[in-house]
Amino acid sequence: MRPPSSTSEGEPPPGEAAGLFGGVFARGPVAGLVGDRAMLQAMLDAEAALARASAGAGVIPAAAAEAIAARCDARRFDVDALGRAAAAAGNPVVPLVRALAGQLPEPAAGHVHQGATSQDVLDTAAMLVARRALGPLLGDLAGAAAACARLAERHRGTVLAGRTLLQQAVPVTFGLKAAGWLVGLDETRLRLAEVRRAGLAAQLGGAAGTLAGFDGRGLEVLARFAAELGLAEPTLPWHAVRARPAALAGALGACAGVLGKVARDVALLAQNEVAEAREGGGPGLGGSSAMPHKRNPVAAVAVAACAARVPGLVATMLAAMPQEHERAAGGWHAEWEPQRELLRLVGSAAAWGRELLEELEVDADRMRANLDAAGGLPLAEAAVAALAAALGRPAARETVERASRRAAEQGRPLREVLLESPRVAGHLDAADLDRALDPAAHLGAAAALVDRALAAHAAAAHHPTEEQA
Amino acid sequence: MRPPSSTSEGEPPPGEAAGLFGGVFARGPVAGLVGDRAMLQAMLDAEAALARASAGAGVIPAAAAEAIAARCDARRFDVDALGRAAAAAGNPVVPLVRALAGQLPEPAAGHVHQGATSQDVLDTAAMLVARRALGPLLGDLAGAAAACARLAERHRGTVLAGRTLLQQAVPVTFGLKAAGWLVGLDETRLRLAEVRRAGLAAQLGGAAGTLAGFDGRGLEVLARFAAELGLAEPTLPWHAVRARPAALAGALGACAGVLGKVARDVALLAQNEVAEAREGGGPGLGGSSAMPHKRNPVAAVAVAACAARVPGLVATMLAAMPQEHERAAGGWHAEWEPQRELLRLVGSAAAWGRELLEELEVDADRMRANLDAAGGLPLAEAAVAALAAALGRPAARETVERASRRAAEQGRPLREVLLESPRVAGHLDAADLDRALDPAAHLGAAAALVDRALAAHAAAAHHPTEEQA
Amino acid sequence: MRPPSSTSEGEPPPGEAAGLFGGVFARGPVAGLVGDRAMLQAMLDAEAALARASAGAGVIPAAAAEAIAARCDARRFDVDALGRAAAAAGNPVVPLVRALAGQLPEPAAGHVHQGATSQDVLDTAAMLVARRALGPLLGDLAGAAAACARLAERHRGTVLAGRTLLQQAVPVTFGLKAAGWLVGLDETRLRLAEVRRAGLAAQLGGAAGTLAGFDGRGLEVLARFAAELGLAEPTLPWHAVRARPAALAGALGACAGVLGKVARDVALLAQNEVAEAREGGGPGLGGSSAMPHKRNPVAAVAVAACAARVPGLVATMLAAMPQEHERAAGGWHAEWEPQRELLRLVGSAAAWGRELLEELEVDADRMRANLDAAGGLPLAEAAVAALAAALGRPAARETVERASRRAAEQGRPLREVLLESPRVAGHLDAADLDRALDPAAHLGAAAALVDRALAAHAAAAHHPTEEQA
Amino acid sequence: MRPPSSTSEGEPPPGEAAGLFGGVFARGPVAGLVGDRAMLQAMLDAEAALARASAGAGVIPAAAAEAIAARCDARRFDVDALGRAAAAAGNPVVPLVRALAGQLPEPAAGHVHQGATSQDVLDTAAMLVARRALGPLLGDLAGAAAACARLAERHRGTVLAGRTLLQQAVPVTFGLKAAGWLVGLDETRLRLAEVRRAGLAAQLGGAAGTLAGFDGRGLEVLARFAAELGLAEPTLPWHAVRARPAALAGALGACAGVLGKVARDVALLAQNEVAEAREGGGPGLGGSSAMPHKRNPVAAVAVAACAARVPGLVATMLAAMPQEHERAAGGWHAEWEPQRELLRLVGSAAAWGRELLEELEVDADRMRANLDAAGGLPLAEAAVAALAAALGRPAARETVERASRRAAEQGRPLREVLLESPRVAGHLDAADLDRALDPAAHLGAAAALVDRALAAHAAAAHHPTEEQA
Repeated sequence: MRPPSSTSEGEPPPGEAAGLFGGVFARGPVAGLVGDRAMLQAMLDAEAALARASAGAGVIPAAAAEAIAARCDARRFDVDALGRAAAAAGNPVVPLVRALAGQLPEPAAGHVHQGATSQDVLDTAAMLVARRALGPLLGDLAGAAAACARLAERHRGTVLAGRTLLQQAVPVTFGLKAAGWLVGLDETRLRLAEVRRAGLAAQLGGAAGTLAGFDGRGLEVLARFAAELGLAEPTLPWHAVRARPAALAGALGACAGVLGKVARDVALLAQNEVAEAREGGGPGLGGSSAMPHKRNPVAAVAVAACAARVPGLVATMLAAMPQEHERAAGGWHAEWEPQRELLRLVGSAAAWGRELLEELEVDADRMRANLDAAGGLPLAEAAVAALAAALGRPAARETVERASRRAAEQGRPLREVLLESPRVAGHLDAADLDRALDPAAHLGAAAALVDRALAAHAAAAHHPTEEQA
Repeated sequence: MRPPSSTSEGEPPPGEAAGLFGGVFARGPVAGLVGDRAMLQAMLDAEAALARASAGAGVIPAAAAEAIAARCDARRFDVDALGRAAAAAGNPVVPLVRALAGQLPEPAAGHVHQGATSQDVLDTAAMLVARRALGPLLGDLAGAAAACARLAERHRGTVLAGRTLLQQAVPVTFGLKAAGWLVGLDETRLRLAEVRRAGLAAQLGGAAGTLAGFDGRGLEVLARFAAELGLAEPTLPWHAVRARPAALAGALGACAGVLGKVARDVALLAQNEVAEAREGGGPGLGGSSAMPHKRNPVAAVAVAACAARVPGLVATMLAAMPQEHERAAGGWHAEWEPQRELLRLVGSAAAWGRELLEELEVDADRMRANLDAAGGLPLAEAAVAALAAALGRPAARETVERASRRAAEQGRPLREVLLESPRVAGHLDAADLDRALDPAAHLGAAAALVDRALAAHAAAAHHPTEEQA
Repeated sequence: MRPPSSTSEGEPPPGEAAGLFGGVFARGPVAGLVGDRAMLQAMLDAEAALARASAGAGVIPAAAAEAIAARCDARRFDVDALGRAAAAAGNPVVPLVRALAGQLPEPAAGHVHQGATSQDVLDTAAMLVARRALGPLLGDLAGAAAACARLAERHRGTVLAGRTLLQQAVPVTFGLKAAGWLVGLDETRLRLAEVRRAGLAAQLGGAAGTLAGFDGRGLEVLARFAAELGLAEPTLPWHAVRARPAALAGALGACAGVLGKVARDVALLAQNEVAEAREGGGPGLGGSSAMPHKRNPVAAVAVAACAARVPGLVATMLAAMPQEHERAAGGWHAEWEPQRELLRLVGSAAAWGRELLEELEVDADRMRANLDAAGGLPLAEAAVAALAAALGRPAARETVERASRRAAEQGRPLREVLLESPRVAGHLDAADLDRALDPAAHLGAAAALVDRALAAHAAAAHHPTEEQA
Repeated sequence: MRPPSSTSEGEPPPGEAAGLFGGVFARGPVAGLVGDRAMLQAMLDAEAALARASAGAGVIPAAAAEAIAARCDARRFDVDALGRAAAAAGNPVVPLVRALAGQLPEPAAGHVHQGATSQDVLDTAAMLVARRALGPLLGDLAGAAAACARLAERHRGTVLAGRTLLQQAVPVTFGLKAAGWLVGLDETRLRLAEVRRAGLAAQLGGAAGTLAGFDGRGLEVLARFAAELGLAEPTLPWHAVRARPAALAGALGACAGVLGKVARDVALLAQNEVAEAREGGGPGLGGSSAMPHKRNPVAAVAVAACAARVPGLVATMLAAMPQEHERAAGGWHAEWEPQRELLRLVGSAAAWGRELLEELEVDADRMRANLDAAGGLPLAEAAVAALAAALGRPAARETVERASRRAAEQGRPLREVLLESPRVAGHLDAADLDRALDPAAHLGAAAALVDRALAAHAAAAHHPTEEQA
């Protein structure tokens, strides 16, 4: 049975629609936190915080601030009407401020948005949205990592063929494979957590970043504003210096890449001809009514699809960085949707990836059988080592290479062919050879590497990355 | 006054919401044609066409086909419920087929989707959506081109500084600048029209592309299916061979790039310090309540923002092309939203771009004044030519370069400095020099080039690219 | 034995070094045609053509033109010295013109580059390089397509499992799979050939695109210049309107995507556990000294690697399109290396892909065995059809789905489980069932589709895309 | 005069050619550290370190290790021959190992590369190359930041128009603009330094990442190997888990974006019509022989061109992350050139950017003149504030807006129009108004923000980011 996870059948949170493809791209809790409604609420939260910070600094009356803050509820506004009205000004803050002020009496109405520019509100809201979304997103990444850790531990000794260039190479363990996923997830997750902790900053500068509209108390308003919202206080307004959005995009991109790697491995392991792992499924997941024998790797496919869309969006965010002067003529606008799209896609990939890993079914017998089907060829190097003591390395290598070629051509086990070789017979008997060709004896430091990964994960777990917003 | 255009204040068509940033990114008619609801209707259109084509080929009863087709109305279905249900199967066609069949009695219910696979319906629907969106999109591009043609004609003789590396170079005409935009718009538009004409194909192959589910009449069903929908009949099913989506993406990308070029030029010309052109505005467009003196280049900014998001999406479409075997494990899914996003963004850029060009205000006096402010330096080459007859080219060049440097350093007109030079005085008097330094005499083939562009445009106009779906 | 192909062991043409990774990324003839030396020669060819065109139009003396043209040999210049000197002017044309003039007496020296701007020469040279590279590149693509056609024909009846989401679905033929590759290669190849034919244009405009430096005969010089070089004559100079480079990039991107699809399929088929195809190898190709049993899919890996680098470069070309005014402040420069890089990578992918396809070894027995190993489950739909006549479709489907589940759970053939079912037994005997479950009977229109692809290929072959520059 | 900087006229280091476009894209010291020869030396350094680490752990004889290490000099090998030979094996390590062993007697020859796989050597070498390149690259970024700090300090009080959407908005200081650049450079530089410190790790795992080829002492060899090279010791081999290359790419991408922002601002400020800043030039830099009056912003253009190429390469690195199983079939290969290309381009951008900033000429008078030319309109908000005390905010706003419109329409100073207004006259005389409209009185917290940026920079300077490799 499926354990409870952060996602409940892909249902979107109240008020945000998943959309036609939300089943794939809006899995888990993040999509509901980055939609238009969530963004609008964050914009209103920024307006409320601005009013309170301004009041705290003595720039506007406290009563006005509270009156403003009381109206800052997204349910009082019409997303689409604001969107349409945004055309005239080039952004939706202008009509939002008008609508918000329109709901207030003077003098409060006159203090709405006082001293700020549209970009202050939009940038701050985008950072708030990121902060809120990264809570559960990091939670799903941590859940995925924890699932990897369990797999690594459980399968520390499960032998399967290591594969390079999609060809069987030498034996590894499934524990080591899972440990590799684990390290990748942890490394990218910790970086993303660091971006969440220190990289997400409030934006406040006014028309051209001088804080000129705050009666000389701009710096105090800025500090209070950031504190109100739980965002970092930036050294300077960053209207046209986009290091922060770039850092967020880069960190999300790296997480997506690791999730994509896990998904690709699982999809390959789930091939009928390999069949070493398959998705746990759950009610209705991955079945095909037309083809009842199929158990589609739905989660792996969904992760792969989400991850495939991320690099282009990261490139868009980076390409938008060279923004003109104090506020840009297009580059900034180009970030609005892609930044939230990145959160949505990586959030969906993380939710799918966590489910995938928590419910992965591993077939250790099949792993061993696939390795054995190679007739011992992946152990050729081990045979060389066993013979080297007697023959010297060059002769041992030549002997084994010849036998390997013959085994491959004739489709026979290497063991058999080696035993026929007079050069081998003089030095190794069947039992010696069986020992030499035992995959479990040729796993190198696999188990110790698993331990290293688990120890690093335990250390990482102390980092507070899973908190919710 | 604003002439009627394809866009009416950015209002979205009935049933599709513009969203919070729709004012910028969903301008004009295209956004309403590529939304989830439009996509769902196209999926249903594909199911209806499949039923009719199958009936036409004698594979299913005609009555069943008509019963099916009668239910293929998006208003009968819930987009978000389908989206959520899509998680289990990995795409929304599975729940849609179930829901559609659920509204029908047997035997019609059993014939819904018969012989097809989910990708047949989704790919066909995506191509239908593209076909429908490209009608008005090409219309807006044609409108933008027509506006360029009018500007080119009207300003054939309007002299301004040609600028290279953002520095004044030599004189050009605004007509030539507009003609450059025109040629770019026409070249990319004609390619996009060609993709619409021949590149958008129906998709039908069944589970693995063999048309095995059509009782031996698969090719006939395919032909009828494509004809029903007005899409090209492909040589083969193209489930995992994505040349067609790539061609569409590439053609859209090129259009966006040219629109972005126009927008960048206009934003630069509209700078206060240049002030050679500005946007026509229209009711409320581009005003800033906080800064009443500003006329923001809203349309140029919107075009730039749309265009900046396109290259990353094209890269995503191309990167998704290497799809596995008969149907892909993620690459295909990765195309779903980006393809429609490309249409939406280029559609919005085209609508904004058309408005921008139709209403552009050109200040010919300021153009001339800015050129004159350079004190004749952009005509230095012309002065060399005038002196070369007397002094020989090398001495003429040296004389003019020395005078130019002095003029630049002292902030004086080149004319004045040249007249002081004894070497010049012996050969050219003030009137000679004025003739030599007249920008209008140094426009080369500018006017003839404008004519070439207009002629090419007239020829292009005979291509039927503006039809609506 | 390896048939002669366009590439001879990856050796670079004389004068161009492959570089440390050239074995992978500079396969075949294209790399040698797009290197720095080839680019320099093309720049000199442009200077020579300019001189001759100017002489032809009476703008400069014929003797000067011939003197100039006689020096336009790349071996007379030092690539790296020009590159270093390029820093001062921002491009290497300025020092090249100085160096070329320095090798000439007056008056020829003074006529070098007369009337042109640096971008005229660089853009024209880039187009020349593209034209020269696309000859053999299209040749390799045509060779790859021809190899696909042979595979499609030879394997028209070779049955294997169709695979969707990397799971076995229903039977297809390897001929159909190859036909899919063929159609993709042909569609993208023909588009690229069209770009070569009509899209590659000469560039000539002078400092700001007015042709002002040609004594009133600019249009004639332009026409002669393009004709000299075998490039299209553009309607206008296109210094800052980059539709042409964008079209080239898009067409190359689509070709790379299809090659990447072929490579991914082959790498998957070559997995040990699938083993349905493998690369032909050739002397030393794909062997692993450390693991003598491995036959690495070197060509598939190389194609995949080349193709993976293409989308980002196409995005760079598209993102560079919005170029300022008459000549850009960075966007143009950003195209220089990526355009040639695209040619190099797609050229290498095409050379590798052609080899891969020409030498692909197909194991029809293993294909059949892998399909049979699924125990008939991919034929479930066929069993439904066979039973539907007797039981009606719903009961038939239910019966088969139940049997399929049991077969999958118990690891037994579907045939066996079905024969145990009383519902089946009454209607079908073992022989009936064997007929129903014969994959060869459930290939739908596969053979006819192969014929369509071959016919389309034969038609395409009449297009003159294989000519060499 | 140009101060000494890290770059000496763009000359490439000995042994690496700049190439035809190196003047733009290979400025400064980095290009010479990332070329093929540098990469080959790094591969040899990895082989030498492997031998020594293996000897240190007792896996191979110390004498063999020293013999191997003594031959690890790139001058003993032929880059192009290795590159060509790489085709057979799919990478250049295989022929390099063969060539290296070929120069050694037994038993040393047999111990070359023992226990390692090609990817161990290539990945380690790529990280070494990154470490070596990032030293001077961070140095140039630090130099650029230091130059910004000097500009910020010197121009703390230099008033100019703040510009939003390329329109004059309200006054700012050039010091604040430079401080914005500074903060962006420092934030992205510190992240890159952190990647250099902790993100660049040795790679060692053997054929499938188990360290099976080191006689049970793999972990010790790994630790010694990393220490030999000054690279971090990874938790696990990361052959197919590419978090580290992704982190490097992301950090480089963010630096490029900030450099691109600086370049764009400078190019815009350098426009003839703005003329508020220009590049210092230096011997021959930015001059145009054809147009002697031009001072081209060559450095800004070069930075912009380098930066424009970065996002696509970052996307390529991210898209390559989902790599198959233990070692990838193409994704890894796709990283080889782009990773070094990123270093080269960001290195060139940093060198150009440093020069640009160190030599930037700022025209404070022109800044003030351009602001004044707006006739006081950017101070409209200040006029509102001055009148608000007397008229109340709404009436003050209305009065000023009306006056602003009139001023804009009539091209007259706002001051003049306001003084004509009876509503104003009763409350403010000319002197009051001059005080109200003094830009210097409306700079908000600009000076304090500059101080914050300088303080943050001073703190950052204590981080050891400038060390050389």
